[in-house]
Amino acid sequence: MTLQTNGLGRSGSDAVPTVASARREEGAHKLLLGTFIHSQSLGELRYRHGAAVAVSREGKIAAVEEDCDRSRAEAELLPRLGWALDDVVVVAAKDGQFFFPGFIDTHLHASQYPNVGIFGKSTLLDWLHKYTFPMEASLADPARARRVYGRCVRKTLSHGTTCAAYYATVDVASTNLLADICLAAGQRALVGRVCMDSDLQPSWYRDEGWEAGLRATKECIGHVERVDPGFATVRPVITPRFAPSCSAEMMKALGELHAETGLPVQTHVSENAAEIELVKELFCGGFKRCDAAAEAEGKEDVLGSTYTGVYERYGLLTDKTILAHAVHLSEGEADLIAARGAKVSHCPCSNSSITSGAARVRWLLSRGVEVGLGTDMSGGYSPSVLEAARQALLVSRHVAMTGGGDAAKLSVEEVLHLATAGGARCVGLEGRVGAFEVGFDWDAQLVGLGGVGDDGEDEEGGEAEAGGNVDVFGWETWEDRVAKWLFNGDDRNTKMVWVRGRLVHQRK
Amino acid sequence: MTLQTNGLGRSGSDAVPTVASARREEGAHKLLLGTFIHSQSLGELRYRHGAAVAVSREGKIAAVEEDCDRSRAEAELLPRLGWALDDVVVVAAKDGQFFFPGFIDTHLHASQYPNVGIFGKSTLLDWLHKYTFPMEASLADPARARRVYGRCVRKTLSHGTTCAAYYATVDVASTNLLADICLAAGQRALVGRVCMDSDLQPSWYRDEGWEAGLRATKECIGHVERVDPGFATVRPVITPRFAPSCSAEMMKALGELHAETGLPVQTHVSENAAEIELVKELFCGGFKRCDAAAEAEGKEDVLGSTYTGVYERYGLLTDKTILAHAVHLSEGEADLIAARGAKVSHCPCSNSSITSGAARVRWLLSRGVEVGLGTDMSGGYSPSVLEAARQALLVSRHVAMTGGGDAAKLSVEEVLHLATAGGARCVGLEGRVGAFEVGFDWDAQLVGLGGVGDDGEDEEGGEAEAGGNVDVFGWETWEDRVAKWLFNGDDRNTKMVWVRGRLVHQRK
Repeated sequence: MTLQTNGLGRSGSDAVPTVASARREEGAHKLLLGTFIHSQSLGELRYRHGAAVAVSREGKIAAVEEDCDRSRAEAELLPRLGWALDDVVVVAAKDGQFFFPGFIDTHLHASQYPNVGIFGKSTLLDWLHKYTFPMEASLADPARARRVYGRCVRKTLSHGTTCAAYYATVDVASTNLLADICLAAGQRALVGRVCMDSDLQPSWYRDEGWEAGLRATKECIGHVERVDPGFATVRPVITPRFAPSCSAEMMKALGELHAETGLPVQTHVSENAAEIELVKELFCGGFKRCDAAAEAEGKEDVLGSTYTGVYERYGLLTDKTILAHAVHLSEGEADLIAARGAKVSHCPCSNSSITSGAARVRWLLSRGVEVGLGTDMSGGYSPSVLEAARQALLVSRHVAMTGGGDAAKLSVEEVLHLATAGGARCVGLEGRVGAFEVGFDWDAQLVGLGGVGDDGEDEEGGEAEAGGNVDVFGWETWEDRVAKWLFNGDDRNTKMVWVRGRLVHQRK
Repeated sequence: MTLQTNGLGRSGSDAVPTVASARREEGAHKLLLGTFIHSQSLGELRYRHGAAVAVSREGKIAAVEEDCDRSRAEAELLPRLGWALDDVVVVAAKDGQFFFPGFIDTHLHASQYPNVGIFGKSTLLDWLHKYTFPMEASLADPARARRVYGRCVRKTLSHGTTCAAYYATVDVASTNLLADICLAAGQRALVGRVCMDSDLQPSWYRDEGWEAGLRATKECIGHVERVDPGFATVRPVITPRFAPSCSAEMMKALGELHAETGLPVQTHVSENAAEIELVKELFCGGFKRCDAAAEAEGKEDVLGSTYTGVYERYGLLTDKTILAHAVHLSEGEADLIAARGAKVSHCPCSNSSITSGAARVRWLLSRGVEVGLGTDMSGGYSPSVLEAARQALLVSRHVAMTGGGDAAKLSVEEVLHLATAGGARCVGLEGRVGAFEVGFDWDAQLVGLGGVGDDGEDEEGGEAEAGGNVDVFGWETWEDRVAKWLFNGDDRNTKMVWVRGRLVHQRK
């Protein structure tokens, strides 16, 4: 097969494979050449320059070679792998571009996508009634659902989101449509039908009792089992909206479903003060202690009197649980979450926008809680995990300035860790995505920044405005370039996106 | 002259005038047609749909007519103004687009533009030494200055910034170059040579004594007087960097220069706790009270013991003074600023990024202080005043959540007011720019949002990705569209930009 190159040895060439041509080549292996950057640990990015990554036709990383240019890859690496040159598609990053793991969005409501940026002065509970429930309910119209979900998946892919944990709506058919759209687009996804049978929801938008809700949830699970057996790309996720949305019976049934199926769980916890009070009122029987051991020791009765304790009581707090927000947890709750291995999706854009609070990420991490990032559209305004990472850094500074101290500050490297490897752990893909290691799936993005000419114009030979708002003058270190990307990058900088080796997005 | 249209009555037409053709037509009047939105008061946007604005060849708004389509404008408005049809360029907003006043950036360091997004974990004083002074000093190289300033002016124009209050460096020649670049590009600017003679600055980057600094400042003022007599586009601004940068003699000399010339003043105040202590140490003589009246009443000695008091003492606190940051002011300082009519440039991106604090904008406004927005590049990471407005809204929620209460929250309408009309007052252009009224200059931008097709693709007939990240489904109210623009808009949404009637930027 003719090798396609992305400008290796041809300065300014735009000869990148198109999505269409790449789809014809899905059967081919891939050889990626250039700079590769990924998170090595919470505070550390690993930079590999002049490296080669070989990706099998199944989408798995077969080799990662440092100091390996194209000729060496052809002379040594490919023969070692037993790959014929004709059977390999080559993608070489241009000078200054780099490969980065795809972003993982650990919490978002695809069904609220049209409402991004619309909050008024509302906070959580009134926002749900005023903006959210009407929008979600309207997606029972399949044409509207196709338009909204289609846009949401395209948009998040264009921002480099290779895996997303989606909330859909209560509606079975359109939830299944979301799964179909993700599968067709090639975006890895957890797709959850939203379970909610309590009268917190209006009568025109809720499950008609817990049994109907459970049945509907099983229908959605069955659909994904049919369209993506083995859940290679799309997985169902058990989704009690949040405790106040569900009857005790629904919570119990979903906990049992989780135990039976081993499917992941996603829900919300401790987002906003009024919500926490509501949970206590609904589930904690006037704070009646139910943990005798804690009571005897004079400790907080986490099980009996906290929001997190409610999920624990119903078997919904396990190492497959993603808890969104976790803004106002008590120490006991954080310890319980860590002990169960449940994950937290930090959603800074949302928490600031709807005035929920500032989550103490360092505090969570230091207690052993695993944390990823969520856009939480449309509580959050942005489809971009890069924006979530940027806001996570900024919000951590507000935590630092209001009692958290300097230790609370999250660095560029740390928020990019949360956006990739941290997210991978949240969605149960640790060791499979989030870094460039042999055996991992090739879920990745190619990032390109902008150049500046002598008079401040776009650099000669570059595509017009290809760099978006990231201007590289040429003297910056690689660390500085990554920081510039974090602070001013947008979808214009995400040139190509792959999931499981398949090219799923490319900038025009 | 043949009328040029922007698609009026021709759906999907891209026939917008190019910058080049518009420059040939600088001598023509303009007729703008469509939706016009501007800030009427702090909390209120005024929407005019189906309106016409007539702009004279001198760049002034000659008429604002509601319910005035093109044929009515041609039949009634132009004859009334005595303008021949052949002498008028017509720009009609497409359906869904709107005209909005140009943004006013009340505080930024053009000389730090290459450092945007680069802070590490530093805070103000170490950040100055590590990143800022070396970059600024390097711009004494004219080629480098041309590249950096050229980029900064292009970039801010592309984000709709029609007026910017710039800090340059200590260097005379490159400061003059910045003024020349603004003038050539047509961006309204206040251009300040940075005055700093204290040993806070390294010996390789500071004025060689206050007399040399004053002389250099006068040279820069003289340059602008020559290249733009009357300061129609570019004005000099007296710029003591911040109190700790200047000797008492320098402060005194600049205060006298301000009194003599009436030129505006810009500086920093109360950004960061360590800086405030430094000011007290340097200027407040161990907090020796110098306001006997205050002392007698047991009140704070604002004049003798505060940062703001230092500027007051040297005659630098007047209604022509722009104070950047104002994060940690005392009540007495805020009252003094209000009494003097000095302005505050709120720089939320910067204050969060370098962990300075969260300015209490509502508190300032309620005390009668005039407030505008600043990007504060490169303390701030973004060239966009829209991003500054977005962050002002988000930071106000953090102020609300940490003691400020709900009243502290700034609305979409309020932050857009600060970005336009509020900024106009800060730079001394109130009544001239910042709104669409007869007699105002036409400093404006044309904003376009994105449309979504049936399967979630870009709307048919639209330019590819022309809407950036603002997706309009069609059912949104105008208020919602503006909110979507505030939260997800970027330079892709700013289609055309005019200053004093001249088209100074157009998206390709």
